[in-house]
Amino acid sequence: MQLPSCYLFQNLTGPQIDTLAAITFEEQCQKGKWLFYKDQKADKIYLVKKGAVELLIKVEDTIEIPIAIIRPDNGCVGIGTLVEPFRYTLSARCAADSTLLTIKGEDLQDLMCRDHELGCTMMKNLAQKLLARLTETRKELKINFMNLVRSATF
Amino acid sequence: MQLPSCYLFQNLTGPQIDTLAAITFEEQCQKGKWLFYKDQKADKIYLVKKGAVELLIKVEDTIEIPIAIIRPDNGCVGIGTLVEPFRYTLSARCAADSTLLTIKGEDLQDLMCRDHELGCTMMKNLAQKLLARLTETRKELKINFMNLVRSATF
Repeated sequence: MQLPSCYLFQNLTGPQIDTLAAITFEEQCQKGKWLFYKDQKADKIYLVKKGAVELLIKVEDTIEIPIAIIRPDNGCVGIGTLVEPFRYTLSARCAADSTLLTIKGEDLQDLMCRDHELGCTMMKNLAQKLLARLTETRKELKINFMNLVRSATF
Repeated sequence: MQLPSCYLFQNLTGPQIDTLAAITFEEQCQKGKWLFYKDQKADKIYLVKKGAVELLIKVEDTIEIPIAIIRPDNGCVGIGTLVEPFRYTLSARCAADSTLLTIKGEDLQDLMCRDHELGCTMMKNLAQKLLARLTETRKELKINFMNLVRSATF
């Protein structure tokens, strides 16, 4: 199975990618279906092979804050599966009829325990992505903060 | 050398902690001294043995957004040293006369290459911390967003 391009798998060797492919399963998912909700136990990571998945925070029944849209070329959803406390930190919904590749959290943990080099590379990739996202999110907060300072001043 | 409690070193073995201690150096730092500025090349990680370090974003010459204060029992500063593109993502200043323990980025990278199990554990710890911080930062954005929605509605 060909794994789609995903930042998590950067710098892995061919044999390591093959081992990952062996624990990967394909699922079809219709537009509008929820894959998971924020704070649920995270037991599966999803790669988008075809289609699109939106990540969002539901605030009330009618209000949603969009966070990102994941397509075949830019990542995966469900990274709460990879680190304690193993909870999803956002909600995810199919934004189009999609073909997804899924990897179970327990299979991935086993693999990282058997091959620490693979584990180290994947966790480095994840930390890099999270630090970049944290920096972007702080930038948004900074803009809000400056708007507040300006509205208080003028 | 006894390394202070830091989330990065959770779940490491005694011998792994000893190897880390062997590449750790002690520095004294006066209150008010800047350790590094946001966007600078990140080449050192700092643990607080005694005293305190504040992490912040400087917006203009006179405006600073405080992010966190790091004390001996709660972490380290300079994690941009651990992941590409190896830049500091915040600025850091001593909030009190402090004793710091420093580890060079290149020494840490070498160690993680030699001992992938240590690398995997440290990177898991880092990813876990970053995901928790990202979730907190998103919560602040959500509060701002809801305030905006409310002020537009009423």
